[in-house]
Amino acid sequence: MSGRTKEDFLREAIRVASDNVARGGGPFGAIVVRDGVVVARAANRVTANNDPTAHAEVEVIREACRTLGTFQLEGCEIYSSSEPCPMCLGAIYWARPKAVYYANGREVALKAGFDDDHIYEEFLLAPQERRYPATRLEIEGADEPFRRWAAKDDRVEY
Amino acid sequence: MSGRTKEDFLREAIRVASDNVARGGGPFGAIVVRDGVVVARAANRVTANNDPTAHAEVEVIREACRTLGTFQLEGCEIYSSSEPCPMCLGAIYWARPKAVYYANGREVALKAGFDDDHIYEEFLLAPQERRYPATRLEIEGADEPFRRWAAKDDRVEY
Repeated sequence: MSGRTKEDFLREAIRVASDNVARGGGPFGAIVVRDGVVVARAANRVTANNDPTAHAEVEVIREACRTLGTFQLEGCEIYSSSEPCPMCLGAIYWARPKAVYYANGREVALKAGFDDDHIYEEFLLAPQERRYPATRLEIEGADEPFRRWAAKDDRVEY
Repeated sequence: MSGRTKEDFLREAIRVASDNVARGGGPFGAIVVRDGVVVARAANRVTANNDPTAHAEVEVIREACRTLGTFQLEGCEIYSSSEPCPMCLGAIYWARPKAVYYANGREVALKAGFDDDHIYEEFLLAPQERRYPATRLEIEGADEPFRRWAAKDDRVEY
């Protein structure tokens, strides 16, 4: 264990965010810590990499999993310069870290022009009523992938 | 415009999902279509790539953006073999496609052991009450990345 506090780690995530602005990225950074050691650092690369999913949290989860050779971050902590957006919240659920810490609430990001609130609201709407409407179509045999999956002996559940 | 229908595209997404199971991936597939042409195909690679964010929709959005050289999918349609999970829903909001179509509802995925419902429920909880609790810590100067961002003349808003 290092002697670094949660606040120290958050300050590092904020520094990653600040540095990223100079590198042409968005003002968001995150780090993953396990047993007091930083295992991954990442920043928002949405416009820099032409990747709308490249939020700092998604990037740092991918990087930490690569480093640790796992698809789940059990026992890890995620430190993010800002409150995770709904996409990142979803990514966090699938990654299963021990805990998440952040410094700027969504109202701080909103003042800078990053509006996550409308996404939270849309989650409460039925799929077809959303801004980007999702429609279910009936397709015969649509569950074929699941039947193949169920038939596999060596499938990894997650 | 090709003569392919929405159902044809969904059948292709389902085929991508089915083929992926044989390749060691999860039973999910998605494609992105623009003006009747498939611009990207992708499948779930979570366990195969050690990447909890590698759901079919996230992967196909990344691939389509790479192909099109953009960070938003305006005018595109996303066809997914199954209803997008909350993480993918968030990714879809940031990608801004014209519309989303899917074949299997979440109850079909649930029967196969993929439970998204608990994530939807957690979205309604306060950050600290969630399964992977998110805690805001007070850090002096936490908004420094946003101040740097605001001072940039060449920032790309998104």
